[in-house]
Amino acid sequence: MSEPRHHVLGIGNAIVDVISRTTDEFLTRHDIAKGGMHLIDEAQAEALYADTGPSIEISGGSAANTIVGVGSFGGSGAYVGKVKNDTLGSVFSHDIRAGGVTFETAMAEDGPSTARSLILVTPDGERTMNTYLGACVHLGPSDIDADLIASAQVTYLEGYLWDPEEAKQAFREAARIAREAGRKVSLTLSDPFCVERHRDGFMELVKGNVDILFANEAEIMSLYQVDDFDEAAVRVKQDCELAALTRSEKGCVVVSGDHTAHVPAVPVDKVVDTTGAGDMFAAGFLYGYTQARDLETCGRLGVLAASEIISHVGARPETPFADLARQHGLAS
Amino acid sequence: MSEPRHHVLGIGNAIVDVISRTTDEFLTRHDIAKGGMHLIDEAQAEALYADTGPSIEISGGSAANTIVGVGSFGGSGAYVGKVKNDTLGSVFSHDIRAGGVTFETAMAEDGPSTARSLILVTPDGERTMNTYLGACVHLGPSDIDADLIASAQVTYLEGYLWDPEEAKQAFREAARIAREAGRKVSLTLSDPFCVERHRDGFMELVKGNVDILFANEAEIMSLYQVDDFDEAAVRVKQDCELAALTRSEKGCVVVSGDHTAHVPAVPVDKVVDTTGAGDMFAAGFLYGYTQARDLETCGRLGVLAASEIISHVGARPETPFADLARQHGLAS
Repeated sequence: MSEPRHHVLGIGNAIVDVISRTTDEFLTRHDIAKGGMHLIDEAQAEALYADTGPSIEISGGSAANTIVGVGSFGGSGAYVGKVKNDTLGSVFSHDIRAGGVTFETAMAEDGPSTARSLILVTPDGERTMNTYLGACVHLGPSDIDADLIASAQVTYLEGYLWDPEEAKQAFREAARIAREAGRKVSLTLSDPFCVERHRDGFMELVKGNVDILFANEAEIMSLYQVDDFDEAAVRVKQDCELAALTRSEKGCVVVSGDHTAHVPAVPVDKVVDTTGAGDMFAAGFLYGYTQARDLETCGRLGVLAASEIISHVGARPETPFADLARQHGLAS
Repeated sequence: MSEPRHHVLGIGNAIVDVISRTTDEFLTRHDIAKGGMHLIDEAQAEALYADTGPSIEISGGSAANTIVGVGSFGGSGAYVGKVKNDTLGSVFSHDIRAGGVTFETAMAEDGPSTARSLILVTPDGERTMNTYLGACVHLGPSDIDADLIASAQVTYLEGYLWDPEEAKQAFREAARIAREAGRKVSLTLSDPFCVERHRDGFMELVKGNVDILFANEAEIMSLYQVDDFDEAAVRVKQDCELAALTRSEKGCVVVSGDHTAHVPAVPVDKVVDTTGAGDMFAAGFLYGYTQARDLETCGRLGVLAASEIISHVGARPETPFADLARQHGLAS
């Protein structure tokens, strides 16, 4: 097995975030459940956008955020995802490449426009995402470059990929290639609603095709259909080689074989916008993993990155994570 | 004269800001003078964008920011400016209307795309703007709706309008209509480089066609070609009914006839991004003016709004100015 060229390769829905501040009352009026990711069609996206306040646009996409985060720690990342050749597609491509990430997926020349997620941030900093998948539905197995996948130490897949049908096939193909190349496969469950939609498929993956699993409390409890976090943690340890479970202000729990590590959260002055918290946890954890750090240190790198991202608007780092890691004695 | 329907109507170059963090070294390497607004063509815009880091997109435009600021204080605003019917044009239109502003200028259906300003923010919070005017060159006299102009207590014009040739004609037409309707005409000198480009024209306006002038220290000294601020302040008092001169961390000086008011700046914890500081000063000052507040209070409302805008990224308010004014005892 040759030396990997990339630490982490991510595959996901390539999305530009459109972020607006809003009120709880607005969510109630539009019948939107607070806190998760909801899929909407183009007409719904336009109607909702028309009713929201001033916005800012920042490149997003869960796995894309994670890979940019890995790069911010000093790691080498690659990304696979589908945008259209339009203004937002150019913005997305520019930003991920400016983050030092290898991104070579062909742009769609026709069909739906680049995906956007209308992210409504309430005064408590919680974000509610309303995503129009647009061009993401055209990501398919032909976009999977076997050499690129085989070049990465870890292939990181977002559960959201199971929403567009062809992307699910691309997901399976990438996981197969990575495993055959002797690399690691990692999955994030993405969102409790996403687990509801695809529980059987995710269960099958966790039991046999995934080496490193990421989930938050709600997601792992939904996967195992239990109402106790500790029970879910016991169950996942039996199914999966390594799982990193995040619990917001309670930090994270890392389970692997008979090893369990509890890592407290890094306190922040004010939670401005929780968008990207899970993505950046995965970035820190995976960066540590590719540097062969112990599991507790991986967890500490994860919560550190999450603490940076929730202290400002948007899901991309403002302070280089490598600097943060040095300041916290987690890197030299 | 009928009761005005709008407190302030702004006319300006309608621009989407593309904001990136950068270093002083980057500016030197690209031979960009720090701190002002530089006009670039489409090819330069593309070359510069390709070399900058990750960006966020926020609606901007100097006079547009000011009118949104007036709205944030609780005033009624209208705006005239030209975007194209493209993605960024839709974003601009959405954001300004979401700010409660009347915006009815017809979108360009062909020709150059919506204007963008690549704003490079250095670690000291200073912003350097590189603007591609795009569709702004198509704003012309036919976009000036006489009834709308006559409906506004103050028509506020940005000096930047003198860069695109047709927009200058629109500017003159709007000023003529406002004066004939017995309304007030206000001008901001916009930028020292802009004053260099159009000094004779601006001088003529200041001496005879403008009631309320906004300028910062560098701009007013450039207008009168003097190297002493106090001398410039004496000169402008002879030429103009009312002038509000801003001096960054030294606050502002308001001169009118034999009245001079000095207003200190509102301290901020950390200057994150100075984009929009002058625009928001004008918003606070003009809002106070339309409420018949005394000149010192107008100045205090100006520096308060500027202090909010420099404490975060982007030139649109994050905290409603009406709330800030109440917290500072400047509104009930």
